[in-house]
Amino acid sequence: MTRPAIDSDRLARALRPIVGDDRISAKETDLTTYSRDMWPRLLISIREGTPLPHRAHLVVWPETVGEVAEIVRVARSQGVPIIPYGGGSGVCGGTVPVKGGIALDLKRMSAVAKIDRDDLICDVQAGANGEHFERELATRGYTFGHFPSSIYVSTVGGWVATRAAGQMSSKYGKVEDRIAGVTMVTGRGDIIDTDGLARSHRGPSWTQLLVGSEGTLGVITSARLRVSPAPELRVLRGYSFPDLIGGIEALRRIMQRGLRPAVLRLYDEFDTLMNALSGGGDRAPADIRHHHAPSPPAGAGALPRVPTQSADVEERSGLLGQIVGQLVPKDRRRGLTQSLRRELVAATLSRPRLFNNVAGPVASRGLRRGCRMIVGLEGSRVRTETEARLTFGELERAGGVDLGEEPGRRWLEHRYSVSYKMSPAFRAGAFVDTMEVASTWERLVDLYRSVRAAIAKHALVMAHLSHAYPEGCSIYFTFAGYADNQKHAEKLYDELWRSGMEAATRAGGTISHHHGVGLLKSLHMREEHRESMAILEALKASMDPDDIMNPGKLGLSAGGLS
Amino acid sequence: MTRPAIDSDRLARALRPIVGDDRISAKETDLTTYSRDMWPRLLISIREGTPLPHRAHLVVWPETVGEVAEIVRVARSQGVPIIPYGGGSGVCGGTVPVKGGIALDLKRMSAVAKIDRDDLICDVQAGANGEHFERELATRGYTFGHFPSSIYVSTVGGWVATRAAGQMSSKYGKVEDRIAGVTMVTGRGDIIDTDGLARSHRGPSWTQLLVGSEGTLGVITSARLRVSPAPELRVLRGYSFPDLIGGIEALRRIMQRGLRPAVLRLYDEFDTLMNALSGGGDRAPADIRHHHAPSPPAGAGALPRVPTQSADVEERSGLLGQIVGQLVPKDRRRGLTQSLRRELVAATLSRPRLFNNVAGPVASRGLRRGCRMIVGLEGSRVRTETEARLTFGELERAGGVDLGEEPGRRWLEHRYSVSYKMSPAFRAGAFVDTMEVASTWERLVDLYRSVRAAIAKHALVMAHLSHAYPEGCSIYFTFAGYADNQKHAEKLYDELWRSGMEAATRAGGTISHHHGVGLLKSLHMREEHRESMAILEALKASMDPDDIMNPGKLGLSAGGLS
Repeated sequence: MTRPAIDSDRLARALRPIVGDDRISAKETDLTTYSRDMWPRLLISIREGTPLPHRAHLVVWPETVGEVAEIVRVARSQGVPIIPYGGGSGVCGGTVPVKGGIALDLKRMSAVAKIDRDDLICDVQAGANGEHFERELATRGYTFGHFPSSIYVSTVGGWVATRAAGQMSSKYGKVEDRIAGVTMVTGRGDIIDTDGLARSHRGPSWTQLLVGSEGTLGVITSARLRVSPAPELRVLRGYSFPDLIGGIEALRRIMQRGLRPAVLRLYDEFDTLMNALSGGGDRAPADIRHHHAPSPPAGAGALPRVPTQSADVEERSGLLGQIVGQLVPKDRRRGLTQSLRRELVAATLSRPRLFNNVAGPVASRGLRRGCRMIVGLEGSRVRTETEARLTFGELERAGGVDLGEEPGRRWLEHRYSVSYKMSPAFRAGAFVDTMEVASTWERLVDLYRSVRAAIAKHALVMAHLSHAYPEGCSIYFTFAGYADNQKHAEKLYDELWRSGMEAATRAGGTISHHHGVGLLKSLHMREEHRESMAILEALKASMDPDDIMNPGKLGLSAGGLS
Repeated sequence: MTRPAIDSDRLARALRPIVGDDRISAKETDLTTYSRDMWPRLLISIREGTPLPHRAHLVVWPETVGEVAEIVRVARSQGVPIIPYGGGSGVCGGTVPVKGGIALDLKRMSAVAKIDRDDLICDVQAGANGEHFERELATRGYTFGHFPSSIYVSTVGGWVATRAAGQMSSKYGKVEDRIAGVTMVTGRGDIIDTDGLARSHRGPSWTQLLVGSEGTLGVITSARLRVSPAPELRVLRGYSFPDLIGGIEALRRIMQRGLRPAVLRLYDEFDTLMNALSGGGDRAPADIRHHHAPSPPAGAGALPRVPTQSADVEERSGLLGQIVGQLVPKDRRRGLTQSLRRELVAATLSRPRLFNNVAGPVASRGLRRGCRMIVGLEGSRVRTETEARLTFGELERAGGVDLGEEPGRRWLEHRYSVSYKMSPAFRAGAFVDTMEVASTWERLVDLYRSVRAAIAKHALVMAHLSHAYPEGCSIYFTFAGYADNQKHAEKLYDELWRSGMEAATRAGGTISHHHGVGLLKSLHMREEHRESMAILEALKASMDPDDIMNPGKLGLSAGGLS
């Protein structure tokens, strides 16, 4: 653990006049809480009780942009790093304080301003919780249309800082498509407002510079976001395709025809099989009668309730739970001791190649589950009905078989559950993680095969495609690995990621789609951006000349600018 | 005329090994041609035979990216500016060589690569002519959907460098919405490719940095553009609204309901009146029977023919022609001598307040023309039919009266004519120009009134709204002014622009929407961007440390970086 010469007491003395005693903390619990995020590599340490590799010196809770600017100026004068902190739900270690410093929690800046009916732009502060924001919009008849599985625990500022995508991005776009302006306090302590006025577009777009900067240029304190009228109608449907390639072709055709379903999720064979086996299985296509009646209105932006966190749900729907479920009869599962469960998990996950390349494919072919797709459309009634008709027609022409509404309804109910499935896996001694890459359509199948093969050597892997564009799509791999101790687990984890990222780059894909870069992928930034990194370095040198803003991230060499 | 110590012969000697003798010129005709664009302020000088204020030293025609990089390196070593040059159709003086140097004409780099059917991205070189590009796409069954009135004389590189918008931007987006990647040779002579691979979005978006840089950071040599399937159906319709505010409300409702007509043009009272008087008038609403049958398919991306350049068309449709037409009976017009015509124009345009504030409004109210709107929808057949039905319904609910297909058809036929109407106005001793500003909806009426009032003191002015977004819209003012000699005309022109830009800024609008900044608005950049200019300056310092790339533009102080 590198700990630069930061004098916490001196720092606290300088900050206290700005925020008072109550909004500054050096308590052990706070420092531990704020020196991590949900990066699975950290969760391995945390499970084993190992101290976190890096620690913040102070946690500070500002309440105004002016306070943020004053804090930055103090930090700069003392050479202390600042790590902007939202919900802590990142999965790439983006908020790890690699050089210590101030964890700047923005959650007290969470105001959602009045929406001007005329311009449909909402000025919202960075610390606003995602679900609160969406619920607030819903009461006024609007939606932002951004539904990440982390929505209950992530913040608007975090979305903007990482170029996040929600589950309905194929209709509403990623965050960067929905942003009109940003307010940022730079590493110099200056407050910058990018164009909040309409779409001026006269020169370089300042907004797009700051979106995705992951705290390395400054603190995003608020954003002007484009909201949409709440949908009048939502239609959901499941489809089955004989194989992944057929499903991919259907996604491409839909997007390139200009159709914009809100939800488009295509699961690969193994993911489809796991889902079926875990009790969430679609009825076999032959059993299905088509249900073409559109669903009742979802209500103005109605959100599903927070998923129930019962052990049973976790067991049944989590990847590990699914595996345990297949190995142990249901009536015996409740009585499984922790040690027996660990043994079963170890037995399974220690042989990833067997399951990935033999058992999985054999079972998948034998059970003829093919590849499942979830399709959802929403918006105004007449348009949605037409768009649904055209979309379903396209799916059927591409060889899809209609599974009715049920798979879609079920997906909607559990759509945020994945963010709550990590704990049982880690408790069972394994690690789980996700890797999201992207490419244009013509490279997509190769990208899928290459990255899957790279992961499959090390962990059980399944995948789905869930963010489609006219020109391409992202692929979201979920994997579970196991090693007998922390050191081995971390080594396995690092090898898996290195080979996955290299495979993605070789196949002409990008190393990330919407989880951001963080610490996890920082070293891979330069591989992909090459000479363009000079631009980011120029910005960094200008906006944060003393490298106090989230140092060591986004491929910017810690401390030194070239 | 400032002429820095550039040694043309030495420069030519260094460049000849790169491009050979044929692709470099120091001929007077070439230098004159390439030291201007279509900025109306320059046209005043040109009409009077006054030498251009700034001159390039050489014109060079590169054929490869490698050549461009070599040319930039030579220029840098000799401290010589480079002004990237496309079609020369800009209207803000963006290609004026204020410090001399090399006019780098990219028109020999005009290749349109094969479109991958899979990803719908087309790699096109910067010098490709807009209309050739669109026609080439049309033969393959695609459209880029970008139709500026300059399409016959502008280039793809020019569009990208200025963040251009075409007449169908409400459906297809502005250029920056349709761009996946850019290749640029920076002012250092380095070749940068921004992400051409899918939508990676891990960090700051390099592409959006370079779009709109107007040659100040480097030479854009090619772009990866998103194309769309050619439309199966095009529907066009005219509508009439009692007043501008009603029409604006209709535009807002359409965009905020998620409808995306390709064409949405709302003309103010004076523009509507002028159009009606010039023989292109809509029938009065009361005479109209509604024609709801959709038009026949437009054919795959079919383009109208180049507008006929007969004097009659110019006289009838040009703003000046319209005025002359009102003052002189038709059978006498052909025989008008040039001097008599000048007198008539002078008599009219010397009294802008009279026409703008008295005669125009009185005539408009008396003739009850209201405000005309042109609406066009296109895309796949079923979707377009539905979208047209919903759009027309919305227009009627907002108080619009259906004028049938004819106004839309007529607009489509003449849609590029405006770019060919400047010559007769200048020949008649006047100047004409356009000013495009933008804001969010709630400020739009105030912006319209403020900017119109500022211009109306100096020139005859009309306006239309033609690029709408869910959050706001742009306003496009067309104006004609007159003064008795060049010096007075330039003074009037400068005063008009200064007061127009100040009015726009005061009303919370932006100084430009899609014509770019150029020389014309360079001084106003800092007023609007304020502290954010530091970002552009940082980029400039990094990518073009010797300030050789189009110096003196985009609000970057000529020569010095702060």
